[in-house]
Amino acid sequence: MPDPDTFVVTPYEVRGKIDYARLREQFGTQELTRELLARLHQAAGGELHPLLSRGIYYSHRDLGPLLDGYLAGHPFFLYSGRGPSGPLHTSHLAQFDLCRWFQRRFGVPMYIQITDDEKFWARSGLTREETAHWGLENLYDILALGFDPKRTHVFFDSRSIAALYPLAIRIARKIPYSTVKAVFGFEPSTNIGLVFYTALQSVPCFWPSWAEGHSVPCLIPCGIDQDPHFRVTRDIAEGLGYPKPALLHSQMVPGLLGDAAMSTTGNVADNALFLNDPPATVDRKIRNAFTGGRATVEEQRRLGATPEICSVWALWRTRFAESDAKFAEVTAGCRSGALLCGECKGQLLERVHRFYDEHAQAREKAKGWAESTIVTEAPKPI
Amino acid sequence: MPDPDTFVVTPYEVRGKIDYARLREQFGTQELTRELLARLHQAAGGELHPLLSRGIYYSHRDLGPLLDGYLAGHPFFLYSGRGPSGPLHTSHLAQFDLCRWFQRRFGVPMYIQITDDEKFWARSGLTREETAHWGLENLYDILALGFDPKRTHVFFDSRSIAALYPLAIRIARKIPYSTVKAVFGFEPSTNIGLVFYTALQSVPCFWPSWAEGHSVPCLIPCGIDQDPHFRVTRDIAEGLGYPKPALLHSQMVPGLLGDAAMSTTGNVADNALFLNDPPATVDRKIRNAFTGGRATVEEQRRLGATPEICSVWALWRTRFAESDAKFAEVTAGCRSGALLCGECKGQLLERVHRFYDEHAQAREKAKGWAESTIVTEAPKPI
Repeated sequence: MPDPDTFVVTPYEVRGKIDYARLREQFGTQELTRELLARLHQAAGGELHPLLSRGIYYSHRDLGPLLDGYLAGHPFFLYSGRGPSGPLHTSHLAQFDLCRWFQRRFGVPMYIQITDDEKFWARSGLTREETAHWGLENLYDILALGFDPKRTHVFFDSRSIAALYPLAIRIARKIPYSTVKAVFGFEPSTNIGLVFYTALQSVPCFWPSWAEGHSVPCLIPCGIDQDPHFRVTRDIAEGLGYPKPALLHSQMVPGLLGDAAMSTTGNVADNALFLNDPPATVDRKIRNAFTGGRATVEEQRRLGATPEICSVWALWRTRFAESDAKFAEVTAGCRSGALLCGECKGQLLERVHRFYDEHAQAREKAKGWAESTIVTEAPKPI
Repeated sequence: MPDPDTFVVTPYEVRGKIDYARLREQFGTQELTRELLARLHQAAGGELHPLLSRGIYYSHRDLGPLLDGYLAGHPFFLYSGRGPSGPLHTSHLAQFDLCRWFQRRFGVPMYIQITDDEKFWARSGLTREETAHWGLENLYDILALGFDPKRTHVFFDSRSIAALYPLAIRIARKIPYSTVKAVFGFEPSTNIGLVFYTALQSVPCFWPSWAEGHSVPCLIPCGIDQDPHFRVTRDIAEGLGYPKPALLHSQMVPGLLGDAAMSTTGNVADNALFLNDPPATVDRKIRNAFTGGRATVEEQRRLGATPEICSVWALWRTRFAESDAKFAEVTAGCRSGALLCGECKGQLLERVHRFYDEHAQAREKAKGWAESTIVTEAPKPI
């Protein structure tokens, strides 16, 4: 029997009931303290994104020095990415929602990496045609969240390789096989594409510094499961003459079936809300979603429910509560027993459907300018 | 004490006194028989290149089926490459001399890969600027040997990556780390660039088939030390729907100091004739070169010398004897004692200097069209 306290979090596997405080200690990252959040609030002109104020982003590396630099007149850039294995689901939006907020509040460039090569290497069941197809589909969804067409740049790996490879060559020489084996838990059967891949995932961290000829700090909002990739990057940064990227780590968004992460790797489509799910499917998935409710209405009215274990509450928390007041209302109603699960789901569904409608329109517009964001050339020779 | 019979031949190391027959057995390649050479002679319109007739190329994989196909109306293409770690020396010319001969006699395309990424990964002492610089310098030397500008195509890795990468992605998924570890003897400290590299070295074998949309057979003349790379390629070819490349393997050209191979990896510059050596240096290196001569003139006149162990005889044999008659005359004179080493070296030097002069002129012309041979785009998406 596996120990129920055992959890595994790597870029290629998330399993078990995650103790996020312990994970932060294991990974050696810093706590995102109230004090640092207050500084971020101030630097952003008196606003914090709900993903920050509600504690979904809870860990970081070097956010303090990045803010110091910004306030001293040294702008940073944002970097995030997506491995296109299929349609996006709502939990994938967290990192991009936060990036869009940073881009708007700080007026900084955003770099997005679409890793259609890496997903082909990581998932033997996917064809290249599929990862290329989903790469473009996912990109439309991401850009539709409201990124600035003039300040958003995309590395679509298979199409941007000429822009990425010169730097990847330098990076790869700094990374021995033993490092990726230890960090990612690779086996002898792991293919040599995946072994190489972390070099390419590091490139965007340094690319603007390379292009501009001076240090440009990088901020990476990502799920904490992606931290190992960038630990490798941080270790080699100084040897290449580039700044170490700063990181902001989120907890994983729980799946609709009650799993620790909204993953559908095991082909459990009902665990997540896909952005291409039709309205009736969204309804069904939310109506069937795992909650923190009680066995009977009577019991729930009397004892209240448990939001912390509820996948529906996680959706309110990470994306769909339009204000902190609404989020507090839902949370209090849940805990007190005043708000029953059916009513709560109904209220959430209104918001989810509204988002899907608005998103579909924004997505059509984004298709018109998505190609123009794809970087295809190196900024300089070698 | 190392066993004097021990020899090591891998793409990254050549060491010891090589037993070529045993090496062929170890590698599991086929003997280049008189019968097969006769068929090649006939297919080439009644000619054999000296590198074939003098036995420097001595081993192959699937040359027979390639010739069968050619005679049935299915043309092949040639593929060879160069890792640009410094200036070319004369032993590097063997594979390209043979390719040029094939290109002329069979009217087929030639693909040349310049691996400026791989050499940067393989040699920690080289900078990227150096491998890029030598890549271009080496390319001029290769093209100057007489390749047809219209039928010669170059993959200069760092600059051709957009053309190579889509196929490399597919290839890399087929190759587990355990394979490259076993074939190349990689260590945990080997960098992830070198681990990945064999995927890129395989690409040209399949590229024309990919571009043309039907099977185009590939012939690779190379030193037998490069066979392991292409054993990996051959193993994955059918799974990708491409033909296995055929190979023609040469022995290594002995070094001027008497080593098994004309390598200068150990910084022993006097072991090789570099194409950028000035005439006085060429003179000195040949005058000091290791021979199969006797201790005294008297003894040599009486007993004769031993061409098989002589680095000067190897130069006659591999490149500088302009006819089989001249080669036979030198060999017989050496063996009988009639031709002393000083006189032999003088005759060779005349030819070496003439080649250097003619080559310098051809090289200047090649500079004018070298850039036009570099492939920078993939033939089709994905």
